[in-house]
Amino acid sequence: MTFSQRLAQAARMLEARLARILDEAAAGGAPPRLVAAMRHAALGGEAKRLRPFLVLECAALFGVAAEAALPAAAALECVHCYSLVHDDLPAMDNDDLRRGKPTVHKAFDEWTAILAGDALLTMAFALLAAPQTHADPALRVELAAGLAAAAGAGGMLGGQCLDLEADKLGVPQRPSEAHVKRLQAMKTGVLIRFACEAGGILGRAAPEQRRALIVYGERLGAAFQIADDLLDTHGDAAVMGKAARKDRGKATLVSVLGAQAAKARLATLEGEARAALDSFGERADILQEAARFVVTRQM
Amino acid sequence: MTFSQRLAQAARMLEARLARILDEAAAGGAPPRLVAAMRHAALGGEAKRLRPFLVLECAALFGVAAEAALPAAAALECVHCYSLVHDDLPAMDNDDLRRGKPTVHKAFDEWTAILAGDALLTMAFALLAAPQTHADPALRVELAAGLAAAAGAGGMLGGQCLDLEADKLGVPQRPSEAHVKRLQAMKTGVLIRFACEAGGILGRAAPEQRRALIVYGERLGAAFQIADDLLDTHGDAAVMGKAARKDRGKATLVSVLGAQAAKARLATLEGEARAALDSFGERADILQEAARFVVTRQM
Repeated sequence: MTFSQRLAQAARMLEARLARILDEAAAGGAPPRLVAAMRHAALGGEAKRLRPFLVLECAALFGVAAEAALPAAAALECVHCYSLVHDDLPAMDNDDLRRGKPTVHKAFDEWTAILAGDALLTMAFALLAAPQTHADPALRVELAAGLAAAAGAGGMLGGQCLDLEADKLGVPQRPSEAHVKRLQAMKTGVLIRFACEAGGILGRAAPEQRRALIVYGERLGAAFQIADDLLDTHGDAAVMGKAARKDRGKATLVSVLGAQAAKARLATLEGEARAALDSFGERADILQEAARFVVTRQM
Repeated sequence: MTFSQRLAQAARMLEARLARILDEAAAGGAPPRLVAAMRHAALGGEAKRLRPFLVLECAALFGVAAEAALPAAAALECVHCYSLVHDDLPAMDNDDLRRGKPTVHKAFDEWTAILAGDALLTMAFALLAAPQTHADPALRVELAAGLAAAAGAGGMLGGQCLDLEADKLGVPQRPSEAHVKRLQAMKTGVLIRFACEAGGILGRAAPEQRRALIVYGERLGAAFQIADDLLDTHGDAAVMGKAARKDRGKATLVSVLGAQAAKARLATLEGEARAALDSFGERADILQEAARFVVTRQM
């Protein structure tokens, strides 16, 4: 199976699992409108499902079957989807298009979008806490703690705050390279890093293996953001499924360093990500290819 | 110590703990603006801290010290505070005043309010997952699962969705008593019920004791909402610390049944809440008083 086929297969499995989880939410008494908005946010479209793919593949390094890693993978994807729903709101990035579909507040309305995002975030923790995720409660609570740290004020939400401060308030006036790196590490890096770590947690990785996955995830996350920024600068909306050049006013490593230096940094990050996998040998071939894929095209 | 003193003492303890938790978030790299908005949402003002009070007092039935129950109590209060921040947004209830202070989107702006709410929700799960909450990970994960269910699409968020559907979309056109009861049970009842259950979880209550706390919490939650609606119909903004009669267009048990029948229902609920505590004897005196307090004045 080629890398792209494997990625697509993971996306299909994830999509099916998310659909089932949302069916269960509806059966459990969640209002139809709210579930419909959650479905709109979480299902279909052109999502590559990078984060759940990384959970599955990193868990697979330790012999964990995809089926067993799927609930945790779905939880991470719920957090990613919620963050997109809220980021797209008029008060935030004000986007009309996402993954080739109208954003949730366009397809429904703002209050429904806010609630659907909240509900996806809450569902992520319901998933991690449920026995289906793993038989060992200590492992489940470790996943929940890790996700809360990655997604919280010191992680993804903190990065989003720094990004919007720069965009809306012009703070700081001239973002330094260090500031942009920190912002991006928080905004997108930490959740991608945690996706890799979560696979290790599910596989009961030894400490040094877990550290290797964290390094891999961190470099991959940083590379992902630079590739995204390069695409945003040069891409077009049809390829991306969202508005291009929407980040024009935002500080990125492309705007701070220039495209050439950003591309060089991307190559360095790819090398570091790959090197982190050395100890896993050819078991990690698919993750090696993922590093290549992230730097060469937008996922 | 009188009931009011005990309630005030719990509020002070909770406030101090929340302040410390937010200091730790700031020290952990959360951006100052985000932490300031979280502080605005979670600290000060005129909050009675009913939910954490219930966690502490229900845990105390089983000999759990307040200090030991405080992290879980703080987690529930974070969820309550986040729900207020998002409910107050222009796209939702559009309120300018909360607990005698400007709402978060008034004191800051909408995007900051959305992120601060998201961050408080995420922090609630970080708190529950942390070893400080309880030494036993199985117990922590049970608390996290319970909170996610209570706060999620089948609970608080579902109730908020039904409420806004009625308010903004006029669906259903004539809400039945059953519809309003379901809406209110979800919107406010489930979290209050879970506050009581969480105390029982912390105290490793026997199944029948836990059921008793759930019945108590459920009746208390329903009574709380009716008392709130009566106060909203007849109260004034100075007493409430928020705009009065803001629920004029919303279906409540007061609007559906009339004030007299709503008051009769309140008395029934108080009796049922008190009866549920019978097996605890005088150990539950303070919770008996809490039932009285909830029906006689707005907390």
